[in-house]
Amino acid sequence: MAETKLTMDKIVNLCKTRGFVYPGSDIYGGFANTWDFGPVGVELKNNVKRSWWKRFVQESPDTYGVDAAILMNPRVWEASGHVQSFGDPKMDCKNCKQRFRADTLIEAHSKGTVAAEAMTDEEMEAYIAEHDVKCPHCGVRNWTPIRKFNPMFVTSRGTLESDADKVYLRPETCQGEYVNFLNVQRTARAKVPFAIAQIGKSFRNEITPGNFLFRTVEFEQMELQMFCREEQSMDIYADYKAKALKYIEDLGLKAENLRYHDHDKLAHYAKAACDIQYNFPMGWQELNGIHHRGVWDLSRHQEYSGKSMIYIDPFTNEKYIPNVIEYSIGADRLTLALLCAAYEEQALDGGETRVVMHFHPAIAPYKVAILPLQKNLAESAKAVYAKLSKKFMCDYDEAGSIGKRYRRQDEIGTPFCVTVDYDTATDGCVTVRDRDSMEQIRIKIDEVIPYVDERIQFN
Amino acid sequence: MAETKLTMDKIVNLCKTRGFVYPGSDIYGGFANTWDFGPVGVELKNNVKRSWWKRFVQESPDTYGVDAAILMNPRVWEASGHVQSFGDPKMDCKNCKQRFRADTLIEAHSKGTVAAEAMTDEEMEAYIAEHDVKCPHCGVRNWTPIRKFNPMFVTSRGTLESDADKVYLRPETCQGEYVNFLNVQRTARAKVPFAIAQIGKSFRNEITPGNFLFRTVEFEQMELQMFCREEQSMDIYADYKAKALKYIEDLGLKAENLRYHDHDKLAHYAKAACDIQYNFPMGWQELNGIHHRGVWDLSRHQEYSGKSMIYIDPFTNEKYIPNVIEYSIGADRLTLALLCAAYEEQALDGGETRVVMHFHPAIAPYKVAILPLQKNLAESAKAVYAKLSKKFMCDYDEAGSIGKRYRRQDEIGTPFCVTVDYDTATDGCVTVRDRDSMEQIRIKIDEVIPYVDERIQFN
Repeated sequence: MAETKLTMDKIVNLCKTRGFVYPGSDIYGGFANTWDFGPVGVELKNNVKRSWWKRFVQESPDTYGVDAAILMNPRVWEASGHVQSFGDPKMDCKNCKQRFRADTLIEAHSKGTVAAEAMTDEEMEAYIAEHDVKCPHCGVRNWTPIRKFNPMFVTSRGTLESDADKVYLRPETCQGEYVNFLNVQRTARAKVPFAIAQIGKSFRNEITPGNFLFRTVEFEQMELQMFCREEQSMDIYADYKAKALKYIEDLGLKAENLRYHDHDKLAHYAKAACDIQYNFPMGWQELNGIHHRGVWDLSRHQEYSGKSMIYIDPFTNEKYIPNVIEYSIGADRLTLALLCAAYEEQALDGGETRVVMHFHPAIAPYKVAILPLQKNLAESAKAVYAKLSKKFMCDYDEAGSIGKRYRRQDEIGTPFCVTVDYDTATDGCVTVRDRDSMEQIRIKIDEVIPYVDERIQFN
Repeated sequence: MAETKLTMDKIVNLCKTRGFVYPGSDIYGGFANTWDFGPVGVELKNNVKRSWWKRFVQESPDTYGVDAAILMNPRVWEASGHVQSFGDPKMDCKNCKQRFRADTLIEAHSKGTVAAEAMTDEEMEAYIAEHDVKCPHCGVRNWTPIRKFNPMFVTSRGTLESDADKVYLRPETCQGEYVNFLNVQRTARAKVPFAIAQIGKSFRNEITPGNFLFRTVEFEQMELQMFCREEQSMDIYADYKAKALKYIEDLGLKAENLRYHDHDKLAHYAKAACDIQYNFPMGWQELNGIHHRGVWDLSRHQEYSGKSMIYIDPFTNEKYIPNVIEYSIGADRLTLALLCAAYEEQALDGGETRVVMHFHPAIAPYKVAILPLQKNLAESAKAVYAKLSKKFMCDYDEAGSIGKRYRRQDEIGTPFCVTVDYDTATDGCVTVRDRDSMEQIRIKIDEVIPYVDERIQFN
């Protein structure tokens, strides 16, 4: 097996040429840190989202889904603290006028050995002076002081652009769960501990380079907030650390490319926090987070809304504001990790190399490609396509040699190729070729659906 | 069968109390025209979206999906004409300072007999003067002239709020298909006629009352753009008129509540346009649209981006900009129509009334509810739940009498209730109760999955 180093360029290039992901607003020269999912990319990402929802909502009797609006009452962001204190520590180079995040500069300079996110602005400024951290763009050290730049996008609800009309694009989805805590509890007759889960878009006005899908101005979060008693909260926190890891391993990320990163320094209200990092081509980076947020979020909303967030235990009659354990993972970021993990350049006999995307079949964009051996078999192949596409997302391809068509399907990760040949009309059979082993078996057309269905489940 | 008039209030109330839909930012007194989908609502809406994608992407070999970014290069909205001329005709009452849409005023005054959307501003002002249309709020006629109010939400990309940094929240999703026309064509090796489809959120700063999910400031569109030769375009237009109607009838909207509304007055570039209207509790309203847009969209993008939008026919070598047929339906609006269509208050023997939501099983939030006959059967019922929830979205309920639990499931439209009783342990069977007929059959636990699966398909 050929071992070549995986670079982000290879992934970006494959994504563009095979229809996974295009630059946003491509014909207008793009639009910073936005990306459009193409025909295979939208299936991949939707399948990733479905796998998460299946695991954490459908199969979790204690978890209830919601889909809250992106635009929320501006008071929500006062309660959450985002209006007052949300912000990235930015410094401008006075020499070349480029803008950077101070924490990113320190992490790059220290090669990841210093956790700048836990430092105060003063500590970061001191570190930069002491270690002579220069501008990566012009090589001069001539920085402004750190200033906070609030990355919330602001728009206006009314017809006048007054402050009273300010509306924010949500920078995180979880507030949709907090404000609906009692709505869900009441209507679902849920008992603590229970979780509310959501998949949805958030927006941050990021000015730092994005590393493709890793950091984008709009991104989709898959996250849940578990409401629980304080006594049980640390157990539930530990439980989600394990569940979160198992989920991404089950999807195909290898254990050796995953690690926990427990936070030393916590927000004042937090009781514990942890990331799971993935070894991306650009290094170890956060993939998801598990946070013990105490009673902070519900207490703040109680204070700002004037509405009681108190839960009444139906057994003990105890009244309390529950603790919150948050588990959150970025759908785009996970999709990027899965693209990286799936990629292989495989040396074949005869010196040829095939690029193959070893996606878990449950997330593969197409489950089956239907290929007539020759173009004059198109009619019967299309009949097979019509039958299978009632059940699965399928591709159909009649252009080029069969070997070339297999390669095309390998590059988009299609787990099964079904070839219709001259014998199909008489024996009612087709050849099913496996993406990973490249082995072929011959089965009845009627057996293809159960054969495939059994092999594409995410359990 | 009791025939009671369906009102929007009944639907809104059911939605709030059963967890379909809550007001957005509820604890802060809401936020105008935003709504949050609760635990059963998010499943309903996701199932509606899946049914559309299955029909129009998965089973349509000529259609390719995309998922484009909400934030696009601002030049897109210059090309589309939204920056210059998009806007609703607004009038202020000088007496009470309330703001209204002139076309809405005329349509209300004429009881829907005048199609104000086709009138010019001058024609509307003349009508209002001639027919003495007064302010619905204060009863005085003292209007400002009509002014256009651009309903695009504007935000800022950079750190300075300059015009150069202006960014818009997309007011429609279709531009994501137009800008990716050649990306998709090339990477999918698509041949005209082919379509690009998308499901995604759009935003409009609506100031008129929304009628619940009917008109909201953020809304999800399900739409496709079919690129075709001019000669075939009218046939394709007619084809989508038929397909669009069949889709919503198949989902459960009754023919007598649906009608075509062909537009008399067209945009200067359009060749034909049509809505399908649904008979909502508040009257006949647009549910979806089919538009023949000619070469307008691609031509404008060619002009504004400087990138050729010309398609080269691989058979004839002909070079041309394709015509576009657009088919678009609002996911929220369709969900509302399906909620209205599903609702029934049914008189039962003994004077009781049950509220039952007759959703097509494919879109029902839960496919199965698992109910232990008594609480001491909870363990074996939970084992059945664990098994079934691997396959379907399921509910579990052990609280209250079995009759009460059936009613709760009827109100959220669960097609099948599976009851675990004292015989289950010995005969391995459960009782399956049908939502619509209320008939019960007894089958083996192992037969439940195929039994349900067969009855919930959307084909």
